[in-house]
Amino acid sequence: MNQPVRLAMLGCGTVGAEVVRLLHEQSADLAARIGAPLEIAGIAVRRIGRDRGALPVDPALFTTDALGLIKRDDVDVVVEVVGGIEPARSWLVEALRAGKSVVTANKALLAEDGGALHDAAAEGGGDLYYEASVAGAIPLLRPLRESLHGDRITRVTGIVNGTTNFILSAMHATGAGFAEALEEATELGYAEADPTADVEGFDAAAKAAILASLAFHTRVGAADVHREGITEVTAADVASAKAMGCTIKLLCIAARSADGPGREAVSVRVHPAMIPLTHPLASVGDAFNAVFVEADAAGQLMFYGRGAGGAPTASAVLGDVVAVARNRLAGVRAASESAYADLRVRPMGEALTRYHISLDVADRPGVLEAVAGVFARHHVSIATVRQAPAGGGTGGDGGDAILVIVTHVAPDAALAATVRELHGLDIVRSVASVLRVEGGI
Amino acid sequence: MNQPVRLAMLGCGTVGAEVVRLLHEQSADLAARIGAPLEIAGIAVRRIGRDRGALPVDPALFTTDALGLIKRDDVDVVVEVVGGIEPARSWLVEALRAGKSVVTANKALLAEDGGALHDAAAEGGGDLYYEASVAGAIPLLRPLRESLHGDRITRVTGIVNGTTNFILSAMHATGAGFAEALEEATELGYAEADPTADVEGFDAAAKAAILASLAFHTRVGAADVHREGITEVTAADVASAKAMGCTIKLLCIAARSADGPGREAVSVRVHPAMIPLTHPLASVGDAFNAVFVEADAAGQLMFYGRGAGGAPTASAVLGDVVAVARNRLAGVRAASESAYADLRVRPMGEALTRYHISLDVADRPGVLEAVAGVFARHHVSIATVRQAPAGGGTGGDGGDAILVIVTHVAPDAALAATVRELHGLDIVRSVASVLRVEGGI
Repeated sequence: MNQPVRLAMLGCGTVGAEVVRLLHEQSADLAARIGAPLEIAGIAVRRIGRDRGALPVDPALFTTDALGLIKRDDVDVVVEVVGGIEPARSWLVEALRAGKSVVTANKALLAEDGGALHDAAAEGGGDLYYEASVAGAIPLLRPLRESLHGDRITRVTGIVNGTTNFILSAMHATGAGFAEALEEATELGYAEADPTADVEGFDAAAKAAILASLAFHTRVGAADVHREGITEVTAADVASAKAMGCTIKLLCIAARSADGPGREAVSVRVHPAMIPLTHPLASVGDAFNAVFVEADAAGQLMFYGRGAGGAPTASAVLGDVVAVARNRLAGVRAASESAYADLRVRPMGEALTRYHISLDVADRPGVLEAVAGVFARHHVSIATVRQAPAGGGTGGDGGDAILVIVTHVAPDAALAATVRELHGLDIVRSVASVLRVEGGI
Repeated sequence: MNQPVRLAMLGCGTVGAEVVRLLHEQSADLAARIGAPLEIAGIAVRRIGRDRGALPVDPALFTTDALGLIKRDDVDVVVEVVGGIEPARSWLVEALRAGKSVVTANKALLAEDGGALHDAAAEGGGDLYYEASVAGAIPLLRPLRESLHGDRITRVTGIVNGTTNFILSAMHATGAGFAEALEEATELGYAEADPTADVEGFDAAAKAAILASLAFHTRVGAADVHREGITEVTAADVASAKAMGCTIKLLCIAARSADGPGREAVSVRVHPAMIPLTHPLASVGDAFNAVFVEADAAGQLMFYGRGAGGAPTASAVLGDVVAVARNRLAGVRAASESAYADLRVRPMGEALTRYHISLDVADRPGVLEAVAGVFARHHVSIATVRQAPAGGGTGGDGGDAILVIVTHVAPDAALAATVRELHGLDIVRSVASVLRVEGGI
């Protein structure tokens, strides 16, 4: 058996503690798979005295000096489960430049400044692995960065935030509003005390940036991702979706499309959208995650599993640890960042989307003509329109009617402009619901 | 840019032609991802003159001398899409021993004699990749052999044969019998003229052996897999499943369980089974494939996509080609076969299964007691029992009744013996349906 591969752990919260526990429990199997035992060289934490339960680890391994730990010559692999931009970035850049391999679950850092990490890894010659940063335990990044490298990925559509999926699933099941569903999620531990990162879509946007970078061989950062959360999704929106045989999910969508002759561009966005109940993503309930990948040759693929939680995330971290440990023993490194395509990232206004629009209108002749005229002026083509008297009247009596319109694909800016103009139309009493539509309604 | 990586193609049927097409179409992207262009050194076929449509390849590359092609010094990677045991085995062993890397889609060969290939790869120092051998385009083997290496997989349950899934889906949807559904599948091109390999479960059994080997770090061959096909699934079985809120799927199941103190064993089997409609595998329709993986830390994962067809299989082949080409450029090889655990493979009689049994019985007092006695004698515990008069009688009138029993988990041999004894019981008019049950009914 070879000399041990030695790990520096940065952080020992929920995920870190689970990594420590699994390293202990599975030590014989991990050693057999790697060809060398794994050893913890040290665990950097903010406070040494904190109660961490009965962790199977020598208490003398805890230190508050993360940088000192990283720099030690007997550390081969740095495992970062601290999260946040700083000091994680400085630590990992330091580690990578020094030739250590890094395994991280830090989606925010990768989305904010993944380039700095990739550059440091290239400089130092170590590996940078981050399977745990997106969709927890679901093996997703390795398939994207390896298995599908012989194919051309055209679109990635994912449910990558468990909190918002729990909330939207509850709203769909019970008809509850956002506030009520959030309260339930908080009580059950699915939402944090400050749920902003989840419900405003920041978490999903970071993951979207990581997925898009891998799928399209292009550096995409958090700032490139159009982001809308779910706080404005109403019970009426959900009812409207249901009436169409749909449900509402917070989706991250990364797609490529033509950008002039011989060129392509990508759009990367996170927003709530209606999808048909028959779509494989529609049945992803509770706090589960799933990512739907479309590629030229492979067709449609879906990856499904637990996107968060200590054990699932630790599983992904440890899979990466085994890979980088093997690479170190073999004296090799994995394929580095693939960003050769360097596609332009479109602003949201250019993204091709479809809208579902529900209007309260005056129920009189000429209404549809006026409304259709607005769409035509913005070059937005209507796919279906459904008109029904509001409140069960017989129609045409000057009362209210509801007009439900689903468009064809158009640039998002044209759709948004259409909605703005509809708001100002005399005969439109109110715009009851506006939702983007995905998945072929 | 580096020197080209040169491929020898063995076979140019549906999959091979698609590989050639994609190599041409994606050549710039593939070269960028690998760091070197891919070139076809030659294509071995049985008949050179055959019409292969407009393949974007120099006709001079075709040869009938496969072995001569493999041995050429300018061949780095051998891509085998011929199928079958011989001559594929001799060719690939020759190639691997000579230090070439091999990418193959040949599930039958891997299940029959994967050990010979792994040994030859270890001897020659090249890579052996076979993502396309199971579940077509779905990136499944790489997650098993890499991403989940930090975890302990406990069970793999898969729908890995599209033909039988199409047939069973049709039987569920329309109430058709097996023969009628097979006819439809043949007409639509989902079943081959001789459907034996599919409907008798040979194809699924080969894939089960490959999956079990990877999941449990143990060599499992086709001969270790208990195999039952779907030819004996009746419309009555399907109706019976539906009445329980279930559907019938041909599942491949590989599971580990305790085998005495401190030891484990695995069971690997392919057979039709009832699963609840709420199980994620239940909604896998048509000719799609999906594999459900359970691991200690990761929890439940599912991989879904197209399991067959030229383009999806070619996508998997090319993903492997990119990986082995990169490895050759870097002068490294991927982790070799992991078979250290060497777990015992149980005979089917030892596998822990559950049965759903539907009996036509005489409707008189004491029947349930007699039936329950048979289960008790074989130490089989009953989970639920439902009794209903047949044909809508009021019960207890000496007519017929239907008794539907679902057991708890027991060794398959005990369950089989129970069914045999029930057949001989006076008060049992007939055993209407016997099905194994999976997925927590």
